[in-house]
Amino acid sequence: MYSRLFAPVLAPRPCAFADSRSEAAMGRLVMKFGGTSVADIERIRNVAQHVKREVGAGHEVAVVVSAMAGTTNRLVEWCREAAILHDAREYDTVVAAGEQVTSGLLAIALQGIGVPARSWQGWQIPIATTDAHGLARILEIDGAELIRRFQERAEVAVISGFQGVHNETRRITTLGRGGSDTSAVAVAAAIHADRCDIYTDVDGVYTSDPRVVPKARRLEKIAFEEMLEFASLGAKVLQVRSVELGMVHNVRICVRSSFEQPDTGDARGSPAGTLICDEEEIVEQHVVTGIAFSKDEAQISIRRVRDKPGVAAAIFGPLAEANVNVDMIVQNVSGDGATTDITFTVPAADYERASAVLAGSRPAIGYERVDGANDVAKVSVIGIGMRSHAGVAAQAFRALAERGINIRAITTSEIKFSLLIDAAYTELAVRTLHSLYGLDR
Amino acid sequence: MYSRLFAPVLAPRPCAFADSRSEAAMGRLVMKFGGTSVADIERIRNVAQHVKREVGAGHEVAVVVSAMAGTTNRLVEWCREAAILHDAREYDTVVAAGEQVTSGLLAIALQGIGVPARSWQGWQIPIATTDAHGLARILEIDGAELIRRFQERAEVAVISGFQGVHNETRRITTLGRGGSDTSAVAVAAAIHADRCDIYTDVDGVYTSDPRVVPKARRLEKIAFEEMLEFASLGAKVLQVRSVELGMVHNVRICVRSSFEQPDTGDARGSPAGTLICDEEEIVEQHVVTGIAFSKDEAQISIRRVRDKPGVAAAIFGPLAEANVNVDMIVQNVSGDGATTDITFTVPAADYERASAVLAGSRPAIGYERVDGANDVAKVSVIGIGMRSHAGVAAQAFRALAERGINIRAITTSEIKFSLLIDAAYTELAVRTLHSLYGLDR
Repeated sequence: MYSRLFAPVLAPRPCAFADSRSEAAMGRLVMKFGGTSVADIERIRNVAQHVKREVGAGHEVAVVVSAMAGTTNRLVEWCREAAILHDAREYDTVVAAGEQVTSGLLAIALQGIGVPARSWQGWQIPIATTDAHGLARILEIDGAELIRRFQERAEVAVISGFQGVHNETRRITTLGRGGSDTSAVAVAAAIHADRCDIYTDVDGVYTSDPRVVPKARRLEKIAFEEMLEFASLGAKVLQVRSVELGMVHNVRICVRSSFEQPDTGDARGSPAGTLICDEEEIVEQHVVTGIAFSKDEAQISIRRVRDKPGVAAAIFGPLAEANVNVDMIVQNVSGDGATTDITFTVPAADYERASAVLAGSRPAIGYERVDGANDVAKVSVIGIGMRSHAGVAAQAFRALAERGINIRAITTSEIKFSLLIDAAYTELAVRTLHSLYGLDR
Repeated sequence: MYSRLFAPVLAPRPCAFADSRSEAAMGRLVMKFGGTSVADIERIRNVAQHVKREVGAGHEVAVVVSAMAGTTNRLVEWCREAAILHDAREYDTVVAAGEQVTSGLLAIALQGIGVPARSWQGWQIPIATTDAHGLARILEIDGAELIRRFQERAEVAVISGFQGVHNETRRITTLGRGGSDTSAVAVAAAIHADRCDIYTDVDGVYTSDPRVVPKARRLEKIAFEEMLEFASLGAKVLQVRSVELGMVHNVRICVRSSFEQPDTGDARGSPAGTLICDEEEIVEQHVVTGIAFSKDEAQISIRRVRDKPGVAAAIFGPLAEANVNVDMIVQNVSGDGATTDITFTVPAADYERASAVLAGSRPAIGYERVDGANDVAKVSVIGIGMRSHAGVAAQAFRALAERGINIRAITTSEIKFSLLIDAAYTELAVRTLHSLYGLDR
């Protein structure tokens, strides 16, 4: 998935220190601050204090920053006003200016409180990316100069997140929304950081959404694979790609609050927040780690499809071409021996498009009718412990049945299972499962 | 003054075309738009129409843009808020983001109306500068890629003004306030443009300030040397360095309004506006071209200075060290044979500092007292024709005397003379001289 430097290779153990450092408590950190954390000059100065705290504890620090909250939206809107159809290369040039401002301002704020600092744009390091403007992927980051400056000048590197450069064209690229998380983890991999701290407006990853489950509690640690499921299932706390990258390179990621002043601790330890790490680092492992859910789902059932080879391709090929993201797929055993029912889910936003595609390809597929439902929700139970524990899903089926909740479809993977239910029962189902698996505080 | 590429060399004749083009009416233009002209998306789209007009006339066009009005001030203010004493390198990184946004947006707007365009930041071309951050000087611009794209893709280059890059450190630099004019003229020199059009909120250079002299009229042409005097004397229409650069490289500069849609004309011709060009191109040359004035002057007279060798050095050395900008200097012939009076002017803003410096160096200089006046003005009469016409200044002395205006000091150069008078008489003096030299409309 990540070519060149970021090809999936077996990464070293997470706590490995670079040879150049010997003090046990000192380490190398990446600190990432999002748009809300740098929304104005006062908050940027607050971020500078966070950085100073870590530098004071003896750590070498690279900071990755987003644009000031609101800036990116304004720049995107200007691009749209300048021309409806805008060149992604120019769009990238415009929006990347937001992070440039923040990185320069934070470097100034750090210098102002006596911390040597230097800002870095994507093209200066460089952070080499593909030329898929607006959605570029990081190919390679040369961390040598940053490391040299840590060691020779004790200089903090303040890096613009979200952006890179395409080396052949020398054009600025951006990674897409939320890309600063990915920048941070990629930088952490490139400079062999001991930890990548993602500062955000929440203080960690929770067993479920606290707004729905008041008894949800913050996880101290979560395995990469579990976090990947959480992120893919719509937990907004981290971008999926950043978790993938962390997993591939074994970069320990800590999600923590930028509005507290927690203890610094050991760079190899786990500060207040949630540490996303290799499962081997998690000593006390529960069977189930958390319950995720999504209400933005729609269910489509194709009735009495001719049960013949190639029918799945006839259905899902055109949907893929139309960029419809198909999720859960359930094919019932044929009742009459000649036809079958196929049910799947799509994001609610894709529902109309999917219906149109299916109507268009009816002759090729051959079916009686299409039923759809917009009022469905997907509830997912996630836990690496499921690998070694049987019957975890069966417990859920029983508990939900006792509450009178009908399960419309089921999918399972090695470390999670997802249930499609009527949207009206979402909260009840999530709380029931949260209690069932012993996650309540 | 301009090292390397911009060393003062004898430039080719102004209208020289590059060999690659042969159509008489077609040419290569630089169009520069300041912050007011690109203050919002609507104005940026208006600028795109200006550019399209020139492209439609067959010209190859490079556009140089400033930051949207207000942006630079806001970014500068943020730097100040982030830390009182801020690193000029980071300051440059922050403020250069303003032009980056404009160049990307204008490229989008151009593409939106069917004009191929590409944005260019200082580091992409590159525009190599010194490392004097915040006040860098352009060393070299490689125009080859821009020219190649004119010819192969008919692509408009949209270049961020005001910024460059220091090649050794790969740090973004800025040229100082008004630097976009200089960027534009330097780009014009690098790509061998036939003309550099500076679009602004005035429609040209006037014989005097129209707010003071209602009969002032727009000059069709003005020689580089004259414009240099105008700009040095405080005419805000063009940055002094851009005029110097135009003179050295013989880049014809046209000051014109961005709020009109004038005829395109020949790239070698003179459109509505004022053309700043080699004096040989100005056929009908008046003796006097214009009257400039400045009220921000202060006069300092040192009374009964010991008249001995080295006294001038004892006075002006310490002033130079204190960065006081000394302008007109008049030394009266000694009356008593032992002492003399020395009078000079400084910018009003430097007055207090200059007085303090003189008080401190009184023992070294040796004088009776220092008299000062803040209520003085400098009126300057400028014209290349003065070189060959005697008695021009004498006419002024007579005319002012008839109006009862006392002249406190006089300095002259080959193409101008300046008079120091009481500030209260400024308007009267300027109007009197404007009529005297036949400049009234």
